[in-house]
Amino acid sequence: MKRTTYCGLVNESFLGQQVCLKGWVQKRRDLGNLIFIDLRDREGIVQLVFSQEFEPQALKIADQLRNEYVIEVSGIVVRRADEEINAKMKTGTIEVEAHQVNILSKAKTPPFYIENGIKVADDLRLKYRYLDLRRPEMQQAIILRSKILQAVHRYLDDQDFINIETPYLTKSTPEGARDYLVPSRVYPGHFYALPQSPQLFKQLLMGAGFDRYYQIARCFRDEDLRGDRQPEFTQIDLETSFLTAQEIQDLTEGLLKKVMQNVLGIEIKLPLPRITWDEAMNRFGSDKPDTRFGMELTDMAAAVKGVDFKVFQNVLQKGGQVKAIVVPNGADHYSRKEIEAKQDYLKRFGAKGLAWLKVTADGFSGPIAKFFKDQVAEIKAAAGAKVGDLILFVADTRKVVADALGYLRTNIAHELNLIDESKFNFLWVVDWPLFEYSEEFHRYIAAHHPFTMPNEEDIHLLDTDPHQAHAQSYDIVLNGYELGGGSIRIHRREIQEKMFKALGFTKERAESQFGFLLNAFDYGFPPHGGLAIGLDRFAMLLSGKDNIREVIAFPKNSKASEPLTNAPSTVSVKQLDELGLEVEDD
Amino acid sequence: MKRTTYCGLVNESFLGQQVCLKGWVQKRRDLGNLIFIDLRDREGIVQLVFSQEFEPQALKIADQLRNEYVIEVSGIVVRRADEEINAKMKTGTIEVEAHQVNILSKAKTPPFYIENGIKVADDLRLKYRYLDLRRPEMQQAIILRSKILQAVHRYLDDQDFINIETPYLTKSTPEGARDYLVPSRVYPGHFYALPQSPQLFKQLLMGAGFDRYYQIARCFRDEDLRGDRQPEFTQIDLETSFLTAQEIQDLTEGLLKKVMQNVLGIEIKLPLPRITWDEAMNRFGSDKPDTRFGMELTDMAAAVKGVDFKVFQNVLQKGGQVKAIVVPNGADHYSRKEIEAKQDYLKRFGAKGLAWLKVTADGFSGPIAKFFKDQVAEIKAAAGAKVGDLILFVADTRKVVADALGYLRTNIAHELNLIDESKFNFLWVVDWPLFEYSEEFHRYIAAHHPFTMPNEEDIHLLDTDPHQAHAQSYDIVLNGYELGGGSIRIHRREIQEKMFKALGFTKERAESQFGFLLNAFDYGFPPHGGLAIGLDRFAMLLSGKDNIREVIAFPKNSKASEPLTNAPSTVSVKQLDELGLEVEDD
Repeated sequence: MKRTTYCGLVNESFLGQQVCLKGWVQKRRDLGNLIFIDLRDREGIVQLVFSQEFEPQALKIADQLRNEYVIEVSGIVVRRADEEINAKMKTGTIEVEAHQVNILSKAKTPPFYIENGIKVADDLRLKYRYLDLRRPEMQQAIILRSKILQAVHRYLDDQDFINIETPYLTKSTPEGARDYLVPSRVYPGHFYALPQSPQLFKQLLMGAGFDRYYQIARCFRDEDLRGDRQPEFTQIDLETSFLTAQEIQDLTEGLLKKVMQNVLGIEIKLPLPRITWDEAMNRFGSDKPDTRFGMELTDMAAAVKGVDFKVFQNVLQKGGQVKAIVVPNGADHYSRKEIEAKQDYLKRFGAKGLAWLKVTADGFSGPIAKFFKDQVAEIKAAAGAKVGDLILFVADTRKVVADALGYLRTNIAHELNLIDESKFNFLWVVDWPLFEYSEEFHRYIAAHHPFTMPNEEDIHLLDTDPHQAHAQSYDIVLNGYELGGGSIRIHRREIQEKMFKALGFTKERAESQFGFLLNAFDYGFPPHGGLAIGLDRFAMLLSGKDNIREVIAFPKNSKASEPLTNAPSTVSVKQLDELGLEVEDD
Repeated sequence: MKRTTYCGLVNESFLGQQVCLKGWVQKRRDLGNLIFIDLRDREGIVQLVFSQEFEPQALKIADQLRNEYVIEVSGIVVRRADEEINAKMKTGTIEVEAHQVNILSKAKTPPFYIENGIKVADDLRLKYRYLDLRRPEMQQAIILRSKILQAVHRYLDDQDFINIETPYLTKSTPEGARDYLVPSRVYPGHFYALPQSPQLFKQLLMGAGFDRYYQIARCFRDEDLRGDRQPEFTQIDLETSFLTAQEIQDLTEGLLKKVMQNVLGIEIKLPLPRITWDEAMNRFGSDKPDTRFGMELTDMAAAVKGVDFKVFQNVLQKGGQVKAIVVPNGADHYSRKEIEAKQDYLKRFGAKGLAWLKVTADGFSGPIAKFFKDQVAEIKAAAGAKVGDLILFVADTRKVVADALGYLRTNIAHELNLIDESKFNFLWVVDWPLFEYSEEFHRYIAAHHPFTMPNEEDIHLLDTDPHQAHAQSYDIVLNGYELGGGSIRIHRREIQEKMFKALGFTKERAESQFGFLLNAFDYGFPPHGGLAIGLDRFAMLLSGKDNIREVIAFPKNSKASEPLTNAPSTVSVKQLDELGLEVEDD
């Protein structure tokens, strides 16, 4: 039998026609002389009817069918009786009178239901991933991801980008995250590394004159995992020569518009909004603000100037900030205890306290309300608060204020369902600092990576005060997630050398790790820049999921292992011997 | 300045217009008050003219330019004087009168010329790969490769294939080639392996119901390298459910047609020719015959029946073969010494000798001609030889005859330039044996891989005489290269278990290595099959190169190292400690 269409695509245009379908038994209802089968394939579900009337032999086989059996069936498409029409089903107005059926594959009872919204342990889903992926929501997520790729290929092809593959077996560069290593057999004791990104290769491709490069690139980072991290992830990676940051952003906007059109049928308006990193931190307390809702941070320094509340005054005297967010109608939503729980949580951002006021008809209520009774109008005006609102203050350094209020803003917006989930708010955050201070490493690290070009007017700062420099870099943010980022790159040896120096590299280390790049700059290297977009995150956001595992066919679990194949696993002594390696005893 | 077009795209349609170009200085001719610059970008070269007449300031800068400087230039497109028209150059009828020029990047003298056909040591080319890739033939090869990918994506998207990524960190399966291993930090002493192909994952995706999968997949094999092997290579990988081998081949033919159209503008005729593996071995002595020329193998058993030449008779009595190829007009081309050199070479195929006859006007000449003087007409007729030809005989087992004559056929065709290099001869080789005997391992191995479905009528042989079984497998051959291969896969546990048994697996080993696949077969696994095409080889053949390194942007050298970045390299003790590994002392 040759399949004529997918189950989910049978519709009224097939009425009266014979169709041949192949798929999985989703459900069987046995009424004796009449058996209904819901047959499922990647496009959806259609109802088959087996009856003594049509074909006794087919009815007999239908009697043997169980969930997840694979069958092929041919029959006639008919309209359902009015009372049997299922408006919730895409194929709900028709059914197929089955005349012939063959069992192609039998099935044991699966360990969980093949349906949306199951509550099953993650590792069980991963162990039986081939069953988990049969569930319609997983099928749709993986298909959506493929549609993103389709749109990306078409758009970048149309824009004369060249699809070029870069190596996965490459050199370890200990700057940045931890590398996955691959022992060499030919050179025992030597290792390749899996790339954390194709950054240097794509820059070299600009040096080679390809002008516009792109690649759907797998990247590898051996880091401790979080919800939106995986040992391997995928980047839509691009690089161009001779373009300005603005021109690269314009190209990227075209790409995003095409993806949103082709994948979700949504028209986004260009140009996308754009704010500086400073503005993002000031207004949202975040370098990747979710702009689907308000609750922006407001500076309360002027309004609380006259308030006799020591905490605020001390901070202001030390040059710190007092800022607030207003929770609309939040006064009744949060008890003192709940607010104190949040205050505890804020300690991880270094915040020493959370001051709050509930706005009442006659002023403020709350433990510190008494300090503010003479400034009610000013404070309400400065914060933009009205009766019934809750005002939350943090007074501290700029960074602590931003981190704490930025967190509270999104945390509360989620709790109170203030976010319109149907929105896709893209936002450029531009003009980043070149460096950021790493609490982990106790030193300055590159805010993006060491190959980022400073703003022209800040290049001189590399000699004097490098950590004040800002960069020609830009992030694209979607709904509060960093979707991607890029920059104009350094293409001159002397600037790159200063950059390495500012990062604490000795000359020798810079040479041994990145000498090939510095040398390349000596041979006519064009100005260039690019961008990378996280495909996993993009697919996650467009399919409304909250974990990238839901848009990866075979992800690792939270311990970086793969319950289906049991990777990683032990290997033979012979394999290790060939590599000149020994496993240390515990 | 904003670029208006690429150098190589300036043509007469731009006459009189101002253009802005960006590129690399290919050549500079200084006539004092007149300087000519050939400016190069990825699309080609255009001639710039700087003159005292147009703009003295620009002429001054032009005077400083050296090869490989990166510049931006604006000027007016004019027609060249008739005597200066260069018909060999795409832009040879025009030039650009340069009015403004800026140096964007200076260049030291490159270690080799940036032009086609250089004679430079491979490792020097790889060390300066970013310069090597600037050479027009390398640019074109990498762009051609990208165009193949473009056509593949469009075709498979249009055919409703879903682009799905499978893991690169997966499980080691010691069957087959050697794996590259990746030590796990979370589980010291455990290893991921880089996949040799996505075979099992794509089969599981069929079990998951995706119906049509494709991926441009990187694959990894830690084998000793040859001209057309690299540690990492790329497959156009696809898999489908519910289709017959013929239907999969039809889909593939559509893909090949589209690629040939889009990339080379060549229309290939479908359906492609198709021969069985048996026929390929009989007629060409090869399972990947080059059909761009004749010189097929002919069976000489009948014709030499009456010849009193012991070597032939002994072989025939033992059930062996006597076969020949005819070198057209070969009698004068090869001396006795040259033929004996070939005979020596054939020893590697196990051939004990090479008999030969030159066809003269009055019979045969050569050391064994005397034995054949009564059968001149019969032998000439059987071999299809005419006066002036050289007949080469090998008498041995079927395998030795095929290997030896198959080798000679292509070796001589190349030596005598008998091959039309403009042809692209695709060919299906179908109905392969399921197993082949491995001289290396002294046992039967899977001819394709252990997941290949036997022919329906041969399934019973798995219980009795498995090595006689033929498989539902097919290779696509292009100009004597295996371009790709595929098969219908096993989707039933009991057949897969018999297959493992025939390969010498214990039940325990089959379970521990492939248990997840066997289990998956228990839950409604659809019939399925697919194919993989080697992208590197495809790009190599379409760009007329003879080594896949010429179509890979950053390949490894013949020692699997990467002279540009110096990968593989040593790593820090800290990195090894985190992985629980020690490097053995030499």
